[in-house]
Amino acid sequence: MSQGKLLYAQSGGVTAVINTTAAAVIEAARAAKVPVLAGQNGIVGVLREELIDTRRESAADIRRLAQTPGGAFGSCRFKLKDIDTDRAHYERLIDVCRAHDVRYFLYNGGNDSADTALKVSQLAREFADSDRYPPLACIGVPKTVDNDLAVTDCCPGFGSVAKYTATSVLEASFDVAAMAESSTKVFVMEVMGRHAGWIAAAAGLAGNGRDEPPHLILFPEVPYDEKAVLAEIRRVVERVGWCTVVVSEGLRHPDGRFVAEAGGKDAFGHAQLGGVGPTLAGTITAKLDLKTHWAVPDYLQRSARHIASKTDYDHALAVGEAAVALALAGKNAVMPVIRRTSDQPYRWKIEPAPLTRIANREKKMPKRYIRRDGYGITDSCRRYLAPLIRGEAPLEYGRDGLPKFVKLKRQLVAKKLPDYPV
Amino acid sequence: MSQGKLLYAQSGGVTAVINTTAAAVIEAARAAKVPVLAGQNGIVGVLREELIDTRRESAADIRRLAQTPGGAFGSCRFKLKDIDTDRAHYERLIDVCRAHDVRYFLYNGGNDSADTALKVSQLAREFADSDRYPPLACIGVPKTVDNDLAVTDCCPGFGSVAKYTATSVLEASFDVAAMAESSTKVFVMEVMGRHAGWIAAAAGLAGNGRDEPPHLILFPEVPYDEKAVLAEIRRVVERVGWCTVVVSEGLRHPDGRFVAEAGGKDAFGHAQLGGVGPTLAGTITAKLDLKTHWAVPDYLQRSARHIASKTDYDHALAVGEAAVALALAGKNAVMPVIRRTSDQPYRWKIEPAPLTRIANREKKMPKRYIRRDGYGITDSCRRYLAPLIRGEAPLEYGRDGLPKFVKLKRQLVAKKLPDYPV
Repeated sequence: MSQGKLLYAQSGGVTAVINTTAAAVIEAARAAKVPVLAGQNGIVGVLREELIDTRRESAADIRRLAQTPGGAFGSCRFKLKDIDTDRAHYERLIDVCRAHDVRYFLYNGGNDSADTALKVSQLAREFADSDRYPPLACIGVPKTVDNDLAVTDCCPGFGSVAKYTATSVLEASFDVAAMAESSTKVFVMEVMGRHAGWIAAAAGLAGNGRDEPPHLILFPEVPYDEKAVLAEIRRVVERVGWCTVVVSEGLRHPDGRFVAEAGGKDAFGHAQLGGVGPTLAGTITAKLDLKTHWAVPDYLQRSARHIASKTDYDHALAVGEAAVALALAGKNAVMPVIRRTSDQPYRWKIEPAPLTRIANREKKMPKRYIRRDGYGITDSCRRYLAPLIRGEAPLEYGRDGLPKFVKLKRQLVAKKLPDYPV
Repeated sequence: MSQGKLLYAQSGGVTAVINTTAAAVIEAARAAKVPVLAGQNGIVGVLREELIDTRRESAADIRRLAQTPGGAFGSCRFKLKDIDTDRAHYERLIDVCRAHDVRYFLYNGGNDSADTALKVSQLAREFADSDRYPPLACIGVPKTVDNDLAVTDCCPGFGSVAKYTATSVLEASFDVAAMAESSTKVFVMEVMGRHAGWIAAAAGLAGNGRDEPPHLILFPEVPYDEKAVLAEIRRVVERVGWCTVVVSEGLRHPDGRFVAEAGGKDAFGHAQLGGVGPTLAGTITAKLDLKTHWAVPDYLQRSARHIASKTDYDHALAVGEAAVALALAGKNAVMPVIRRTSDQPYRWKIEPAPLTRIANREKKMPKRYIRRDGYGITDSCRRYLAPLIRGEAPLEYGRDGLPKFVKLKRQLVAKKLPDYPV
């Protein structure tokens, strides 16, 4: 009997290194002679039976995939509800897997994806018990720039956005410092992080002590007190001559409203945010009469493969390899997570954790990571974050001066089932 | 008789490599045993007799200066008017130079700075003729991310922001492509360039052909036609599935008003705070009903030393070395400029150009660099830009994962003159 195939799918917002994980999955599966199919645009492609045949991709392209940002097979924002509500979808997923002799399903995403993988695994087990078809091993593979997955010490994708953020704040602050005498006094940089201030916190690695940038970090965890924030900015400008403020897109008023409520919702029903950076800069200009500039790197931060961290890259490779190993070892409904065994020197290992402990949970920043005044990170936060931005992930540049990214062939396998419109 | 000292000052918006030029100036002057003073915060510091003694900086720190963004001695936005209006300032500059035995004045900036250097040189020559004091050699040193200096083929600082911009557009477009099926369809990135579209044009290096990003570049040179732009975005989304738009901050309505000045509220109901990127994104969301994200890297782009181009770095070093050589060779009122001698292979040399040909002029993008439809760059533009982003400038990272930038001691020499408030 054949060993069956492995199905890999990417989910949710992509990162600088999710393709690194994809490359590790494909290489590990190839070494074990297990063919890999990939969902085109994530689970939506699986439902539509749009499955990319990764056997058509050359070894050289897969190696280059490890240094390509974005999601090479396409990702999606498509959340499956509970089994009763979305039973048809779950059954279709299992039908598609069976039609293509898929025995292993690796779902590379965050909390929602862990939940989906868990439910697919439960239903597949039910089915397998009743019809004695080989069961489907469902493995969650961690990924998210938000760093908010439970159990794992950190999430692949986060270390790179953290390195990008700390580096950018450091660089821009050199610029502001040079010009402050006669130009911009306050620089505001908005970073991602809707519910948790992990990316904002990472900006804190750019400097040490209160006179180094960023002088203020505004976390989603700390309610926005406009008067206090403006007073602190004024004090910093008086003392240092200029001020760098990092603000999380998820900053909220004390009543819970986002400071930059954009209106509208995304596919998951989350409020769509936009523009706390310019909003705050406008307030500073108006109320403090200080020249202010603002930056919103948006997607630039999570796709910045050119400044990806080596630690993050290593994590991304390791979870991909481990996911294949777990699947082939017959594990089910688990996720390979990163466990830190030492801060200094930084040591970590991969171990499996049950999806039940990860699905739909959210890891917040611990209170002890936020400085008592609310505007900075503590030493224990720094100890946690520091190793994650260390090292420079390998990256080749072309003779044209641009990073050498790959576009895969993405050839689909022939469909075997009736259409299933999604 | 002593050879006298050299005074170096930085002017206007800083770049990723203006300190590379500063390092080259200091090293070349050290080799010639000429002490270098530097104006603290540019010419304002010279007027105030706040002169940094670069002899206090170690050789290791000066080497590291070559890889540090911002302006290490401080820059300023302070434009001297004509000699009749600002005669007191010009005379003060010459007094300060004489008091500190300065024989060479190197002014590192753009059009305005070239004008200032020219006028100082004229006045100093007048004075020297009348009182037989040694004349003051005034050398302009080119720098500007805007790439708008006359005579020189390109400006140090531009190649690096060009590389940052092309790389960022490429990376973010991989992100958008991966998510477009169920998320963002249009990505808008705003870049610097108030009067000339050089930086916007550089984004065009990210892709080739109309189906590769950026799909639209909106130049300050091409009046904004909202209807046509929206129609083109819609066509791209229909054809490609998603669309990347790069927009210059200087985009204007046909009547000459900046689009960013539109005022009122954006599609999200936010007070419009300036920013053509969010303005355009709001229009796209409202009128095309397409999910849109926007990024405004602002200072991040011009300080991004971590992705500086090797060509730009080499230019920055070369103009610094040449400026010292020209000064010591007795030249006056000139600027070392970059002359391109071949596109392929890219070859260039440095030669002196009279400041009279550079002062207060502005080099626009030639019309032949903009594609006939107004939304992209031509092959001749590509030939011009391509070599400028090639290669990766040397950069050391620390064990902390951040680039190793230097903060100089910036120790001032003792004042010799009465106060002069500026």
